[in-house]
Amino acid sequence: MVVNDPEIVAELTALYPKYEAALVSNNAGTLTAMFWESPHALRFGATENLHGSEEIAAFRKSRPAVNLERTVKRLDIVTFGRDFGSVTLEFERVVGGKTVQGRQSQVWVRFPDGWKIVSAHVSTLP
Amino acid sequence: MVVNDPEIVAELTALYPKYEAALVSNNAGTLTAMFWESPHALRFGATENLHGSEEIAAFRKSRPAVNLERTVKRLDIVTFGRDFGSVTLEFERVVGGKTVQGRQSQVWVRFPDGWKIVSAHVSTLP
Repeated sequence: MVVNDPEIVAELTALYPKYEAALVSNNAGTLTAMFWESPHALRFGATENLHGSEEIAAFRKSRPAVNLERTVKRLDIVTFGRDFGSVTLEFERVVGGKTVQGRQSQVWVRFPDGWKIVSAHVSTLP
Repeated sequence: MVVNDPEIVAELTALYPKYEAALVSNNAGTLTAMFWESPHALRFGATENLHGSEEIAAFRKSRPAVNLERTVKRLDIVTFGRDFGSVTLEFERVVGGKTVQGRQSQVWVRFPDGWKIVSAHVSTLP
């Protein structure tokens, strides 16, 4: 198993910005399409635990598309073989005039219809 | 690629409790051995961002082994092929007399020397 095969890292490096752009504009259709459509998909958000693609999609649709901007301070992409990747990042957001430090982890898996996020976790530091 | 091959799920189901037992007793040696030994290993903890196995191991060694008990409320193991798994759980801890709700995500990869955690993220809900 090759760790960080440049070809595979390049694939995820090209894909990830589409997620980030969809996130800050709350493009629910794109975000939902980038997640695995499965009852086993999971998203631990900053304030909610979502199990399965239906709960994740409902959350996206109900979320106000305001103040979602954030600044990515560090992004790490690590791939294992051709079909698995870990995408992690540290970000800053301004909430109520205060800057908060956040972290995001995603697990990416390549399926026949392309790369999907199967699990994600977002949180802020106290 | 088989999702949730029963044989692979059984492997991680057998392994995960060793991590949980080592965690609550802060068995730094076992915890460090269960993580991938690599500068690309990553752990977003409840209050810290650790990059690379050296930072993770140093954190384990410096952590007081007190009040690490937690109750796992839900554990999900999802595997992809034979060598990749996502282990996520929700837990409760009592901190200063108050019960806090936590979440933990781990990415497990099978290497020639066995399964290792390559990325982890722990956080509490506000």
